Amino acid sequence: MKLLEDRIREQGQVRPGNVLKVDCFLNHQLDVDLLDAIGGEFHRLFAGQGINKILTIEASGIAIACMAARHFKVPVVFAKKAKSKNIDGEVYTSTVHSYTYGRDYDITLAKKFLGPADRVLILDDFLANGKAMRGLLDVCRQAGATVAGIGVCIEKGFQPGGAELRAEGYRVASLAIVDAMGDDGSLTFRRQED
Amino acid sequence: MKLLEDRIREQGQVRPGNVLKVDCFLNHQLDVDLLDAIGGEFHRLFAGQGINKILTIEASGIAIACMAARHFKVPVVFAKKAKSKNIDGEVYTSTVHSYTYGRDYDITLAKKFLGPADRVLILDDFLANGKAMRGLLDVCRQAGATVAGIGVCIEKGFQPGGAELRAEGYRVASLAIVDAMGDDGSLTFRRQED
Repeated sequence: MKLLEDRIREQGQVRPGNVLKVDCFLNHQLDVDLLDAIGGEFHRLFAGQGINKILTIEASGIAIACMAARHFKVPVVFAKKAKSKNIDGEVYTSTVHSYTYGRDYDITLAKKFLGPADRVLILDDFLANGKAMRGLLDVCRQAGATVAGIGVCIEKGFQPGGAELRAEGYRVASLAIVDAMGDDGSLTFRRQED
Repeated sequence: MKLLEDRIREQGQVRPGNVLKVDCFLNHQLDVDLLDAIGGEFHRLFAGQGINKILTIEASGIAIACMAARHFKVPVVFAKKAKSKNIDGEVYTSTVHSYTYGRDYDITLAKKFLGPADRVLILDDFLANGKAMRGLLDVCRQAGATVAGIGVCIEKGFQPGGAELRAEGYRVASLAIVDAMGDDGSLTFRRQED
């Protein structure tokens, strides 16, 4: 998606440790016009798949999922990263390793919001090693839901998450795939078909 | 806002300890059409205030803020509840007490996203004791930003947060104010002018 790639080139910042900061528009400050365009693009890519629910994980994924859900006209449900007293006992749980935070955490989703009748589009901001995505897929497996597609804004193509998921047969759409990040801040995007 | 009050009556669940669960549509599963109407209502209430940024806190607030931001055509910035390695050192920090989780936590916001030129609308899903709101107001104070308004979806009118903020002169708009929750699950909403 050229609009997103252009924005990453303009405002993304490459940091040591393969960190790509996009906090100006995607995951701390949010450019809602851009998110709306991203949501429309996910709809273009996954329309006709019978999707009836969008699944994401807090926090940044919520913005993307909501803006996409407007186009699909389906509800969003998001997995939570901490167990609150407000959540009833009936939850799916999966453990995720976070490279960003350097620790494991549990994600939870109330069982009443996902079941065998659901055809799910999973959306998130980043796909790198794919650990958070594995947690969401595990939740879908527990629920007996069908994963109709996986959409991410930015995939780090030099990390294995996306390739592994595609090899397993998942339909993964990444709106921008960064194949290389140079020490000078340069970015190489993978060419993708429209 | 009648649409929201009706939905709370239909799908909200009163639980012991003054808990009002609205996870079917507001903070776990998200009804995006309802959120869009809520966003439009916040715009109706705060249009003409020169608002150039919407501030919220992860996670549920992000959905509300994004859907409102479409109407205001301004960016969203959200305070984070945990410090990630991805955040640079230049952040505003404030400590918030959570009754839900029974502990204190820090919220952070990158300094580059809020400053003296900003006229901010603060949005969140709930206002009860107002502790999270105090954290966001503290961040605005540190930034030298002007708080043009505070909007929440559901205020618990029998807890002191909203009254205290209004007494201090903040313009607080709550789309639904619950003045009483009965042991039988009944809800009493405060009558508000349009």
